[in-house]
Amino acid sequence: MALIVQKYGGTSMGSPERIKNVARRVAKWKAQGHDVVVVVSAMSGETNRLIALAKEIQDQPDPRELDVIISTGEQVTIGLLSMALKEIGVEAKSYCGWQVRVVTDSAFNKARIQSIDEAAMRGDLSEGRVVVVAGFQGIDEQGNLTTLGRGGSDTSAVALAAALRADECQIYTDVDGVYTTDPRVVPEARRLKTITFEEMIEMASLGSKILQIRSVEFAGKYKVRLRVLSSFEDEGEGTLITFEEDENMEKAVVAGIAFDRNEARINVKGVPDKPGIAYQILGPIADANVEVDMIIQNVGENGTTDFSFTVPRGEFPRTMGVLRDVQTHIGAAKIDADDKVAKVSIVGVGMRSHCGIASTMFRTLAEEGINIQMISTSEIKVSVLIDEKYLELAVRVLHKAFGLDQAIAN
Amino acid sequence: MALIVQKYGGTSMGSPERIKNVARRVAKWKAQGHDVVVVVSAMSGETNRLIALAKEIQDQPDPRELDVIISTGEQVTIGLLSMALKEIGVEAKSYCGWQVRVVTDSAFNKARIQSIDEAAMRGDLSEGRVVVVAGFQGIDEQGNLTTLGRGGSDTSAVALAAALRADECQIYTDVDGVYTTDPRVVPEARRLKTITFEEMIEMASLGSKILQIRSVEFAGKYKVRLRVLSSFEDEGEGTLITFEEDENMEKAVVAGIAFDRNEARINVKGVPDKPGIAYQILGPIADANVEVDMIIQNVGENGTTDFSFTVPRGEFPRTMGVLRDVQTHIGAAKIDADDKVAKVSIVGVGMRSHCGIASTMFRTLAEEGINIQMISTSEIKVSVLIDEKYLELAVRVLHKAFGLDQAIAN
Repeated sequence: MALIVQKYGGTSMGSPERIKNVARRVAKWKAQGHDVVVVVSAMSGETNRLIALAKEIQDQPDPRELDVIISTGEQVTIGLLSMALKEIGVEAKSYCGWQVRVVTDSAFNKARIQSIDEAAMRGDLSEGRVVVVAGFQGIDEQGNLTTLGRGGSDTSAVALAAALRADECQIYTDVDGVYTTDPRVVPEARRLKTITFEEMIEMASLGSKILQIRSVEFAGKYKVRLRVLSSFEDEGEGTLITFEEDENMEKAVVAGIAFDRNEARINVKGVPDKPGIAYQILGPIADANVEVDMIIQNVGENGTTDFSFTVPRGEFPRTMGVLRDVQTHIGAAKIDADDKVAKVSIVGVGMRSHCGIASTMFRTLAEEGINIQMISTSEIKVSVLIDEKYLELAVRVLHKAFGLDQAIAN
Repeated sequence: MALIVQKYGGTSMGSPERIKNVARRVAKWKAQGHDVVVVVSAMSGETNRLIALAKEIQDQPDPRELDVIISTGEQVTIGLLSMALKEIGVEAKSYCGWQVRVVTDSAFNKARIQSIDEAAMRGDLSEGRVVVVAGFQGIDEQGNLTTLGRGGSDTSAVALAAALRADECQIYTDVDGVYTTDPRVVPEARRLKTITFEEMIEMASLGSKILQIRSVEFAGKYKVRLRVLSSFEDEGEGTLITFEEDENMEKAVVAGIAFDRNEARINVKGVPDKPGIAYQILGPIADANVEVDMIIQNVGENGTTDFSFTVPRGEFPRTMGVLRDVQTHIGAAKIDADDKVAKVSIVGVGMRSHCGIASTMFRTLAEEGINIQMISTSEIKVSVLIDEKYLELAVRVLHKAFGLDQAIAN
C-alpha cells in the first residue's frame, strides 16, 4: 500500500487506444492496493497544433492568451483518461491545474509552481478514486491560467508528489530508463538501475533528454523518490533517481556518457583584454535571446585575448549576424567559427573523489587521434568539444574506457 | 456610449481569418465609444470533434468528464479572439466561464445558469478593455466544470447581458434577422424589424432555429434587449426582439409562418377510453427518451378512443418498436403511422385579439386541396400537420393569405 504519482507523456496519450492502455496500467497499480494520482500531458502534437493556430492570429502570440489556449490540450486528456478508467470499472475524477490549485507565479508560458492544495485529492483518494490531474498548467494569484513551459508535466508530477508526500513519482516515457549512453551509438549501453540527482541533471542538460531538468531539481529539493519507466513495456523497474547520500553501493566512477550534436563554436579573436569585454560580446547575444552553452576565455597576452563560446546550431547564423554588427565596436581582430562540432561529456558523482578521470578521457581521445577544441568542467562532469565527425567514435571509446559496457558496474 | 454584449457563433469563429473579421467588427463598436463584452462559441465542428473523441473511449461518455473535454472548444476561441483584438490595437482580456464565475447547477451537459459575478468584467471595461468570455460553459458550486447544452452560448450571452444590465445583447449569426418565413421556400419572405419574445419562442421551437429557445426565455425573464444580426454583413440592423408591451406599432396579426419537416405521426387506434391511457402510451416513449411534439386525443365512443402524436422523424423507428412492445398491454386495436408528414404553423401575438385567424388558415389550405391531419393551437399560434409533399405550397399560400409579402406590414 503506497501512494504513487504516475506521469504519462504525450506519446503515451497519443490516441484513444493508447489512453486505454494507460488506464489498464493504472488499474493494475490500483488493484495492488495502491493509491494512484495520474498526471497527463496533451496528446502528442496537440500543443504544437494549438501554438500554430495562435500564430495564425499573432506572429508573437500574447503570452497570457497563449496559455489560455494551450492549456486545453491537457484538459482534454484528463477527461479522456478518467472516462477510460471508469469504462474498466475504476472510479476516477479529473482535475485541471486550477482545480487542484496548482498556484504558480505569473510568468506566462514558463510559470513556476509555488504551492498546491492537496486537500481535494486526499478526499478522492480516501474514497478510493484515482485522481487524474492535468500536467503543464496552473493558475496565478490573480486567477489567470498559466503554463509551465515545455516538458512542464514532469514538473507537475514531481510537485504533486511533493505536496502529497507520495512514496514514489513514476515518469512513464518512451524509453525504459536512463542508459549509460545512447544505445543507438553504443549497442553495449546498459540501463542504469539507479542514478543520482546530480548525475541526472548533468545527463539531461547534456542531451540525454528524458526528464525535464526542472522536475529533477524539484525532486531533489523536496526529496521526491523519482523513477523513469517505459510506458510501452509491462515489465522492468526502470531507473530510480536517488540521493547520493542514500547510495551505499559501490558505484562506477563515471555513470554515463552524454553528447550533444546541436552545437556551433564561435571564437572572437584579438579582443582588448580589459574588464567588461565578456559582457560586451555576450550582452548583445543574450539580448537576441540566444542561449550560450560553453564559454571559455584564456589568459591574454599583448593586451588582447581570445574569447570562445558555443550556441545551439540553429541559432548560429543569427548569432554571427549579431557579432558582425558589434565586431568593430568591441575591437575584435577576427571572428572564427565552426558549426560542425559536437560536445561529449563524461558524468559521474564518483569523479569528486577520484583523480585522473579527466586525463583518462583526454588520453583515450588522443589515442584515437581526436583533437579537443574546447574543454569545460564541473564537479561531476567533463565536457569536450570535438569535430562532429568523430562524435560516435569518441562516445564508443569513452564508454569502453570507463568500463560502462561491463554488466558488473552499477 | 452603451454597454453591448455581442455573441458570435461557431461559423463566425470558424477560421483564423473569420476570427480576425470578428475582431474588426468588435473594434468598430469600440471605436464608437461603446463598452463591449464578447461571448464566443467554439470553432464550428470542434465540439463535435471532441464528442467523437470521447465516444472512442466510452460509448456513453461520463457526463462530468465530457464537460471537462468539450468546454475546451470555447477556451481556445476566447484566446484567439483576444489575440486578434490585441493585434489590431484593441486591449482585450479573455475569461473562461469559471473565471467570471458563471455559476450553474450540476446538471452536466445541460446545466442552467444560477448567477454571474460581473465585478471582474466591470473592472476591465472601466479600464477600456474588451472582455471576451467563453460561452456554453460554467462551474457548479462544487467547482466542477459544466456546459449548458447545444446552443448554450446564446444563453451565456443573454445571462451576461442581464448580469451587466447591458443596453443590448446582439446575437451575430449566419442570417441577418428573423424572417416571415424561410426565404428558400418563399422568395417574398421579409426580414422582420421587430418580433415579440413570445413570437420568437414559437418561431424558434417550430423550426426557424436562429436562437436557442432558452436564451429567448432568459431574455424575456430579465428584460434583456436582444437583437439578431448577420455576422457576414456590415450593414443592416437585424431583428430586434421586443416586449409586446413596448410595441406601439400597428402590427400584422400573423408575424410569420414556421414549419418543420422533421415530424412523424403515430395513431394508436381503438384503445380503451379510460383514465391513465395517455400515460400508458406515452410513458414508455418518454422512458426511451423520445420527445413527443403534438398530442391529440379525441372524444371517444363505444368505450374506445384514438390517440395521436408526433415524434421527430429520426426517432420514428425506435418509437414504433416501443409501441409494438406495449400494444397488447394497452389493448390497442391498431397502430397507424406516417413518417411523411410536416407541420406548418402561423405565429403572431395579434391572434389573441383577432378572431377568425385559424379559420382563414384552414380555408386557405382547403382551397389548395391540402388535407389537415392534426391541429394544435396555443394563444399565439395555430399548427397543422399535413402531407409533407404539400409543405412548400402550404407555406407559400399562407404567407400570401396573411399579407406577409407586403412590405408595408410590420
